[in-house]
Amino acid sequence: MMIGLLGPEGTFSEKATKKWNDRAELSYYDDIFDVAKAVAAREVDCGIIPIENSLEGSVGMTLDALLRFISDETKIIGEIVIPIKHCLLMKGDITDIKVILSHPQALAQCQQFIKNHFGDIDIQMTASTAHAAQLTSKSKEMAAIASEESADKYGLKVVLRDVQGQKENYTRFIVLGGPTPEPTGKDKTSIIVYLRKDRPGALYEILGEFASKNINLTKIESRPTKKALGDYLFYIDLEGHIADKKVQEALNMVEKKAGVLKVLGSYPRAV
Amino acid sequence: MMIGLLGPEGTFSEKATKKWNDRAELSYYDDIFDVAKAVAAREVDCGIIPIENSLEGSVGMTLDALLRFISDETKIIGEIVIPIKHCLLMKGDITDIKVILSHPQALAQCQQFIKNHFGDIDIQMTASTAHAAQLTSKSKEMAAIASEESADKYGLKVVLRDVQGQKENYTRFIVLGGPTPEPTGKDKTSIIVYLRKDRPGALYEILGEFASKNINLTKIESRPTKKALGDYLFYIDLEGHIADKKVQEALNMVEKKAGVLKVLGSYPRAV
Repeated sequence: MMIGLLGPEGTFSEKATKKWNDRAELSYYDDIFDVAKAVAAREVDCGIIPIENSLEGSVGMTLDALLRFISDETKIIGEIVIPIKHCLLMKGDITDIKVILSHPQALAQCQQFIKNHFGDIDIQMTASTAHAAQLTSKSKEMAAIASEESADKYGLKVVLRDVQGQKENYTRFIVLGGPTPEPTGKDKTSIIVYLRKDRPGALYEILGEFASKNINLTKIESRPTKKALGDYLFYIDLEGHIADKKVQEALNMVEKKAGVLKVLGSYPRAV
Repeated sequence: MMIGLLGPEGTFSEKATKKWNDRAELSYYDDIFDVAKAVAAREVDCGIIPIENSLEGSVGMTLDALLRFISDETKIIGEIVIPIKHCLLMKGDITDIKVILSHPQALAQCQQFIKNHFGDIDIQMTASTAHAAQLTSKSKEMAAIASEESADKYGLKVVLRDVQGQKENYTRFIVLGGPTPEPTGKDKTSIIVYLRKDRPGALYEILGEFASKNINLTKIESRPTKKALGDYLFYIDLEGHIADKKVQEALNMVEKKAGVLKVLGSYPRAV
């Protein structure tokens, strides 16, 4: 079993991956898009990528990657939720900081901390939090926002803990692969629906198909189609499995009403 | 008339502000939060901030600022849409580029361009695109992604034009201030609704209040409450003015059903 994930060693993706399967071989990629692409190209058996954080919301690149790489063979087959505790890591002393490095999502989660304590310090974006730690190990003037584990991995000191905006901070990861797992009775189905802009009220009709069948929606999120301002795709998570008769019926009705329906997968809900 | 906006000179916010009012005095701030705070504190008469881009969607910091700073005295009183054309700006030659600087939203809009042409080059985040241009003017190894105007302003060359992911790229800005403008017949009302997580189907009920009164929704967007994963606020834009009887009636019903309803403002739609 080979799993693709965001590298280098020490990312939160690695932590999520080990929670999912602690014996698989790991193959590290530079960004989320490359992980999804590797799964679609069968370079790896599965790929694990972050989709949503409790402070900053959805990861845009993941939503775009799902639209592009999910197919009949590549689906979402699982989800994992892990707590995220960001630390400020350094090689030098806190008084030497000239630049703070991290992944944009982590920087957004910690923006209040940075603004309060470092004002308009230089900020450098990296492709992952672990990559920030790796770079920081080369200079005493850099500080990384990353996991405690990456301090050990790259020989850095933990200068401050829990630098995210709120103590409680969780990220949900999804597992890409195939085939669709069997129903467990506690499943979730993810879909993308495109509603034409010139059909107001269409979203209400679509939601009605689920409400009338008592299907609970756990998430609804809009994402630009990138074609025109105000033109959206809706990413919807619902309770139930694609093999459930009522889910199938609702999706058949949605398909008739929406311009496009893409089923991303059915998988057991994370506890 | 004094308008607060994201600085320094040469930002896309400045372009939007001049489209709104080309004779006002301008007061530049470091970030979106500071602009909203300045309006609430009456340091300026109005504030103009970006809320949504056609490639990358909502600006998270603006949504959070609305939740925090909108009050009976501070509302959304207008909107402005402008085309966004990003350029790659440099002082030196393109072969000397070691680091690319820009605002995170601009970097996201241009991520494909950067990845295709510069691979894993260092990326530095700045508080605005104009700030990136300003910093770039100090080093031949830096390149900024910013507007053509900021090239003139900071003595840089336009090395490449239209480096965003798609030729068509628009950003919508909102004007914060008061009082609420009179109805024009072509208005929009923005609200935030909080629906308790343990009441599935609540979103459908809320949308039903608008659908049954033929009120069109132009946008619906979820944003984490930052309290727990899966706990969302919904930002909704609808056609009509708070002074319209049917809008008032619908909002009264929504207020009864939702945990929290916050009216952000009624204002003329941008054309």
